[in-house]
Formats: sequence, structure tokens, C-alpha cells
Amino acid sequence: IKSKLPNVSVTIFTQMSQLAMEHNAVNLSQGFPDFDVNPELTALVKAYMDKGFNQYAPMQGIPGLRQSIQKKVFNLYGAVYDPDSEITVTSGGTEALFAAITAVVNPGDEVIVMEPAYDSYVPAILLNKGIPVFVKMKFPDYRIDWDEVKDVVTDKTRLIILNSPHNPTGAVLSPQDMKALANIVADTPIMILSDEVYEHIVFDGVEHQSMSRYPELKERSFVVSSFGKTYHNTGWKIGYCLAPRPLSKQFQRIHQYLTFSTMTPVQYALADIMDKPNLYLDLADFYQKKRDYFLDLLTGSRFRAMACCGTYFQMMDYSEISDENDIDFSRRMTVEHGVAAIPPSFFYHGNDDHRVLRFCFAKKDETLEQAAKILCTI
Amino acid sequence: IKSKLPNVSVTIFTQMSQLAMEHNAVNLSQGFPDFDVNPELTALVKAYMDKGFNQYAPMQGIPGLRQSIQKKVFNLYGAVYDPDSEITVTSGGTEALFAAITAVVNPGDEVIVMEPAYDSYVPAILLNKGIPVFVKMKFPDYRIDWDEVKDVVTDKTRLIILNSPHNPTGAVLSPQDMKALANIVADTPIMILSDEVYEHIVFDGVEHQSMSRYPELKERSFVVSSFGKTYHNTGWKIGYCLAPRPLSKQFQRIHQYLTFSTMTPVQYALADIMDKPNLYLDLADFYQKKRDYFLDLLTGSRFRAMACCGTYFQMMDYSEISDENDIDFSRRMTVEHGVAAIPPSFFYHGNDDHRVLRFCFAKKDETLEQAAKILCTI
Ligand SMILES: CSCCC(=O)C(=O)O
Ligand SMILES: CSCCC(=O)C(=O)O
Repeated sequence: IKSKLPNVSVTIFTQMSQLAMEHNAVNLSQGFPDFDVNPELTALVKAYMDKGFNQYAPMQGIPGLRQSIQKKVFNLYGAVYDPDSEITVTSGGTEALFAAITAVVNPGDEVIVMEPAYDSYVPAILLNKGIPVFVKMKFPDYRIDWDEVKDVVTDKTRLIILNSPHNPTGAVLSPQDMKALANIVADTPIMILSDEVYEHIVFDGVEHQSMSRYPELKERSFVVSSFGKTYHNTGWKIGYCLAPRPLSKQFQRIHQYLTFSTMTPVQYALADIMDKPNLYLDLADFYQKKRDYFLDLLTGSRFRAMACCGTYFQMMDYSEISDENDIDFSRRMTVEHGVAAIPPSFFYHGNDDHRVLRFCFAKKDETLEQAAKILCTI
Repeated sequence: IKSKLPNVSVTIFTQMSQLAMEHNAVNLSQGFPDFDVNPELTALVKAYMDKGFNQYAPMQGIPGLRQSIQKKVFNLYGAVYDPDSEITVTSGGTEALFAAITAVVNPGDEVIVMEPAYDSYVPAILLNKGIPVFVKMKFPDYRIDWDEVKDVVTDKTRLIILNSPHNPTGAVLSPQDMKALANIVADTPIMILSDEVYEHIVFDGVEHQSMSRYPELKERSFVVSSFGKTYHNTGWKIGYCLAPRPLSKQFQRIHQYLTFSTMTPVQYALADIMDKPNLYLDLADFYQKKRDYFLDLLTGSRFRAMACCGTYFQMMDYSEISDENDIDFSRRMTVEHGVAAIPPSFFYHGNDDHRVLRFCFAKKDETLEQAAKILCTI
């Protein structure tokens, strides 16, 4: 049987988490917290299961959750979305990304992707017979050169995928970036897929630039977010997509045949917990402390920290330690030293390797201490 | 924005459930129980949430659940699947169907679909640029004429989709059907997608014919099942796909970018509850009683029952009552009389209408009584 995705294997997240488990390594590879979900949220899920909310939710998501999302997005970004026709609850950010790409990419359409790129974008484009067109974020600060983006736009450009806060680099788009993007797409039919699953994790007083904030971008954008990163429950797999009515209509046509709907009692619980904005408003501060603590602990090491303005990932340059490529180095670090991290070359179609690794710092202080102690000896 | 699925609208299940809600009708349309999930299962989910099993599961599903599935399938069907490489946990049966079709259907491939057909098959085929080739099950007993199937097989036939127990008709494949199918696919590279989500709901002493039971069929089949129909928790959206290693490998390549994984604490809970086989072994008896009770209650009505050997759906002929098409009649029945059912014409690409409706009898006895009382007056 001929593969439709001949160049992909098991995701790097699965590979590294398995390797970490086998070698009992401190796992700073796959992005998930090792502390637990908010107990209030768990209590709500229990209550809704007990109250009998266990059958199919509407395919768009329950009205209450769509209303809570509407409120949040309005309060944070001043963006108005109609919960009846412009908000869809999905089985995680991953499903939302796949559905959006499937909704709009036709054979031969070009899709502009910034590298390093989260690993699900390109397979989704290829399955829809689209053509990924890559633009590299500039090493070492990973800014986007908008002139390069402009240069690759053609008549066939259908979609530009952006991701801010950016996984794996931690880079964050600025208002200037948004302006440059708006200039490029103005007077074109190009659509935007904006992966904002780390929207609440932005540091140093910087403000998240949601695509929904800018009317001229919002009108052509799918904005994807996720609850897993916000409530420390990555394993619950629930997210959402915001898009103007004509885009949402096509999105929902796909979504209803991909998964139809998402776990009902969890939807009710999230609708309630979103009434406590401090839970997401405090998140940036919470993770900034973690980032700073982790970097403090590594001061004496031979790793050199790179830009990290958001997400719970920190890129570290290991070029002083080794000349191995990032795959070899990350495997050896896991097996011999007992700390696992992600080799970012997996996020480039050409496997570009800059002698950096991505560390997830969504971990208990003890875990970070344990990892740092080892990393300082390498 | 041009639609990639121009001919689909909101699913009929969503439409009818909404209409039922608006008119406060007894809802026998969308297939879900109005009694609750097993409280033991809920207790297990709670316990696993509390124990902190809230982060990403492996993309194939947790090992324990894959092992429980392996055991069940071996005990029931004598089928051997390797849990490490031939079993994948999915976000519901719907995701499994979409992933299987996406894994193998290439542009121009023909896919044989029996009509009436569950509404997600054709959109998934079309999104992969495959060509659905329809064979009608024979009205009124909905058996498959295998000579007709044979006649439509060509060099381009890539996949045959089967569904037993069959939604919406309640028909069940027999050992003779399996033999006829095996003859057709022998010495061809044709693959099979077997939708068996109602596998435990088969009546009158008939045995479910799983594709996994027949080695010459198993070797080329994706077998899809679902937990929602078995544990009365359709809203939890979790299912699985069995397939030989080369097929599972391609399936997982798609699955990992569609949803990646499914709610972790639910996976642990299901792994445990599957150790109580009586919960699925008693299901046929439980639903047979419901079917018989519902039919008893309708003895005095002008509806005439059709074949129902499995599933929790009963097709009823209303031709003595009205000459309206099934869409008009089902809407009027909902709005004027207060009972909602599904018009099966939605399951035919040509909207064939046989003056029958599909009623879901996965309901409390009181609900069935309430509906029957009304139906007897129409
Ligand atoms: C879906 S598993 C990957 C988790 C993640 O987003 C990451 O580690 O980057
Ligand atoms: C996914 S909603 C449809 C439920 C169902 O399977 C049916 O009613 O046939």
C-alpha cells in the first residue's frame, strides 16, 4: 500500500517521549505540563458527567462554550464573532488546523509556511494536494523577513500559515509584523490560518497580536486556539476555531465529518471555568517565572539561551558543547545524560540544523532543577 | 470561497435534533440514549483525572486500552491483532472512518458504497478526490445483491465500505454475505472499510459477522468500532480502528495529524471497564427488549415495522398514513405531532425515498411509551 505521506514517520514528540521513558530521562521534549489540571475544572467535569451530560454535543460545540469563547475574545482583542456561526469547538488545536487547511486548500494551491513549522501543517497541506512554499524565519532571533514572504506570493497563493507565540522558537509577532502582513494580503484573496494556541503565554509585557484584533486580517483568517495549554490539560484534546461566517461555514462542513463533536461534559466545564479570566490572565506571569527560573539554573552551563518571548518552550544553543547535529545530540543527551529535548530540525523540510534544542519548561520547579543539574554538567 | 463539499449542509442529525428541541418533540431522530452512562465508568474517569492522567496520550492510544481491545476482539472473533502496531484509538468512529478513507483513497480511485449510506462516508471520499460508486441495498429487506457489487468492480476500485449492523436500516451481514464478499475481492488489491460501531447490538440470536473473523478479509480491512454505542456515552467521542500492520501504519500517519490523540483519563477508564465483558455481552439482550417493547407499543398504529436485526434503529413504513416524501413527513411529524425521526432519503445520493422513517429506540421505556402514544394517533 502506497503511502500518501511517504516522508513522515511517527511524530518527533512521540519518538522523544518514548525514548525519554525508556531511558528514564527527565522529559523536557514533548510540550505538556508535569503539574496537574486545575482541580476546579476537574470538579466541574465530574459534576456534568453526574448530571448526565454525556451524549453528543452539537457539532459546532455547546452554545454555552461558544458564548464563553466569544466573551473572552471580545474582552481581550475587541474582536466580535457570532457564536452561532463563527465559532467552532474542535477536538484539539490539531483538528482545527487540519479542518481549516482541508476547507480551503485545493490541488495546486500554494500555502506559505514559515520554518521552523509545527509538524502538522505540511502533512495537512500535502493530503489536500496543496504545495507548501517555505519561508525561513531568520536565525538566531527568528523574525520574519516580510520582503521574502512578499517575493513568494503568486497567483496561486491560497493561504499563509502563521503561528504566534511560535512553537518551537518562542518568537512572537509584533504590531509591525501585522502591518507588513496586512500590506501583503491587501487586494488579494489570500487567506490566513493563525495558530494561536499559546495566546495566553507571552512574556516581558509584550502583548499577543491576535489575528482577530485587526479587522483587515480577521476578515480572511481562521484563528485556532486550544484549552490544553491554558488549563494544563493537554490530554483532553479540545480547542476551537474562530472565522468569519463564510469561512466558518466551510470549516464546519469539514469538521462535522472529521470528528463531528467533542466530549460533552468537558465542554460544559470549560464554559463555566472561562468565567474566571484570572486563570488565563495569570498564565503569562506563571510561565515567565518558570522560564526565568530555568534560565537562572542554567547560568553556569554551556548552553546559551535564545529568544523566548512566549510559549512554554526555550530554545538553547549547544554549539559550545558539541558539533553533532541536533538529532544525534538530543538522542545522546537523552540516553547518556538523562534529559530529553526536541531537535528543531524536524520542523524544517530540509532538516536545517542550527545546533539548538527546544526545552519545555512547563514543569514543576523540582523537575527543572533536576534537569538543570544535569545540563550544567554536560 | 468555493466549497469543497458543495452538496452538503449541516448533518441531518443536527437538523432534526434542533427541530425536535425547538418544538419540544420526543426525539427519536439522532442516535443516542436518553438514559445514562454506566456509573462505574464515570467513577473510573473521575479517579484517573484525580490521579493526574490529564496530559497527551500516545497517538496510538494508551497501551492498556489497546490491550483491552485486543483481548475483546480475540475472545469474540478469534482475531489476532498486535496492540503495538495494529490497533489505534481514535476520537470517535467518525475520525476512524475519515482517517481510513484518507489513508488509502487517491484521486480517481473508486470506492464502492452501499446505499443507504451513513452520511460521513461520501464527503470523506470526495475530499480525497475519490469517486463514490453506489450499490443500493434491496428495498424492503435491504440485503446486498453481490452480483451488482461484482458488476461495478473495476481496475480502479480501491475500497469497499461495509457497515454491519447497518445504520439506518438495522440489516446485518450473514456468513453468506461474507463469503460472497471474499469471492469478489479475492485476487484483487481491493481494501475494505468495515464500520462495525454497532457490533454488540445484534438480535434474535444472530451473530455479528466481524470482518476480523475471516482471515482472507481481515488482511485487507480497516475495522472501525466505537465505545459510545456500547457504554451509553455517545458524547465522549472515542472509538478505534483495527487493521493489519501495513494498513495501520498508513492509518496512523493520518490520525496523528487529524487529532493526534484522544482524552487520556477516558482511555484509562475504558481500559478498565472492558475487563467486564458482561457490559457489552448483555447489550444485545438489553436493546432487543427495547426494540420489542417499542414494536409492541406500535401494534395498533398505522406504521409498519421493517427488518431490524441490529443497531438501535427501527425503520418504519408510513405509506398507509401519508404520501408525503420522508423529509416533509418527518418535519410535519416533529412540528405537528411532536415526535422526531430521521428521513432516510438523506442517506442516498439521489435522495431515494421509500416512505419510511428511522426511529432510535435507545430510550427509556417512558420515552418510548410517550412517543408510541402519539404515533398511534397519526
Ligand atoms: C500533539 S503532541 C505535541 C505537543 C506539542 O505541541 C509540542 O511539543 O510542540
Ligand atoms: C454523529 S451524530 C449521528 C448519530 C448517529 O450515528 C445516527 O444518528 O445515525
